[in-house]
Amino acid sequence: MTDLSYFRNRRTVRSFSDRKVDDVLLHDIIADALRAPTCGNMQLYSVVATREPDNKAAMARCHFNQPAATGCDVILTVCADFNRFVKWCEHEKAEPGFDNFQSFFSAVADAFIFTQQLVTSAEMRGLGTCYLGTVTYNAPDIAGLLGLPSRVVPVAAIALGWPDGEPEQVERLGVEAVLHNEQYHDYNPDEIKRLFRPKDDFAPNRKYVVENGKQSLAQVFTDVRYPKADNELFSGVFLRFIAESGFLQL
Amino acid sequence: MTDLSYFRNRRTVRSFSDRKVDDVLLHDIIADALRAPTCGNMQLYSVVATREPDNKAAMARCHFNQPAATGCDVILTVCADFNRFVKWCEHEKAEPGFDNFQSFFSAVADAFIFTQQLVTSAEMRGLGTCYLGTVTYNAPDIAGLLGLPSRVVPVAAIALGWPDGEPEQVERLGVEAVLHNEQYHDYNPDEIKRLFRPKDDFAPNRKYVVENGKQSLAQVFTDVRYPKADNELFSGVFLRFIAESGFLQL
Repeated sequence: MTDLSYFRNRRTVRSFSDRKVDDVLLHDIIADALRAPTCGNMQLYSVVATREPDNKAAMARCHFNQPAATGCDVILTVCADFNRFVKWCEHEKAEPGFDNFQSFFSAVADAFIFTQQLVTSAEMRGLGTCYLGTVTYNAPDIAGLLGLPSRVVPVAAIALGWPDGEPEQVERLGVEAVLHNEQYHDYNPDEIKRLFRPKDDFAPNRKYVVENGKQSLAQVFTDVRYPKADNELFSGVFLRFIAESGFLQL
Repeated sequence: MTDLSYFRNRRTVRSFSDRKVDDVLLHDIIADALRAPTCGNMQLYSVVATREPDNKAAMARCHFNQPAATGCDVILTVCADFNRFVKWCEHEKAEPGFDNFQSFFSAVADAFIFTQQLVTSAEMRGLGTCYLGTVTYNAPDIAGLLGLPSRVVPVAAIALGWPDGEPEQVERLGVEAVLHNEQYHDYNPDEIKRLFRPKDDFAPNRKYVVENGKQSLAQVFTDVRYPKADNELFSGVFLRFIAESGFLQL
């Protein structure tokens, strides 16, 4: 019988001990992740492990040296990968037609489904993980570091290691906020206010508002964490990289 | 202690019994999924449950009436959703800058991470699931059925129900095929042949090759299952939908 309490108790780990993740354990969590659902059983992903100190320092810089990246034992970069599948097609005298956005999107889906199964297996074994959401901001640099060929795009990155203590659990919007029955029920201002109250009222969030000199938590997101200019800059970088990788032809 | 054997034993379910998924159970697996990692804790997803017979029949047609879609109890459509977050920003006098591809990609990541946690929780509770990879092919029709507003894009769909028996487990490429250490190791023809041998040799796959009158399994993928012309047609449909949803401005 599986212990389902894992799910409600999970939390992201950004602070790691010095203990290493051994090769057998890494192999085991990847073998678990291979059993995740995949589009047409094509397994359109690869994962590159970065643990050598110099490589990890260079990779952490691509993630703006955030503590989870500098302090973890291994950074796993998961890529949407059509390279391997296309090479198989060519070997088998089959003519691949995967240089397009729909194929890219299938590989992205595969990569995230694989990554999340990997994360779940790792966490259920006591490891700590943190997604590094910065992976697509600096995709070209990361591709350079890892020697990625065409048709391989880094889309997810995981800082992995043994946790140094147990972090506090953060707040979440509830089921009511995200579940719609039969039809999407759009939100009126009163509902927005009510559904987001746990977020607005969460003590650490109120602290961020004060520390950043803002009037509301939402302004911390729009002005400090995810400003429009940054989003647009990194959109350009990432879209160009996808095009150069051969996935935007129509 | 968690039973880790779930991972290696999992299999996709496409055939369901008549037993219903009750509301409490559906609520529980969504509550579990809410604890999945999410970009900046923004929870950029929504899920729409389709179970009313007429709605489900219409939705199954958007998935080409594949048996998993017609035979399941509930279809869950998971959307990349910036609508709710933008409405909160506007309510809180914050100026959102999320009309771009990078923001869309963050919401896509959130949606898949959430979906896969939902799938894992459901399967650990004994439910069966099948991803309907067709969701992006007919995104505009699905958005119409569900009444999705701007900035809400359907990206994953799950057929959910109680399994009717246990299907055979299918083959997978092994860890060696997908894991790279420090640098991406590109594949030479001998490696491709060796790594894909389990797939080429898997008895049901050999049957597909004969049934489809092809010379190799790869040709079944390129000529029958995912032909170039279809991929390109659906790429156009999906990219236009993303643009209309406000996510392709630079």
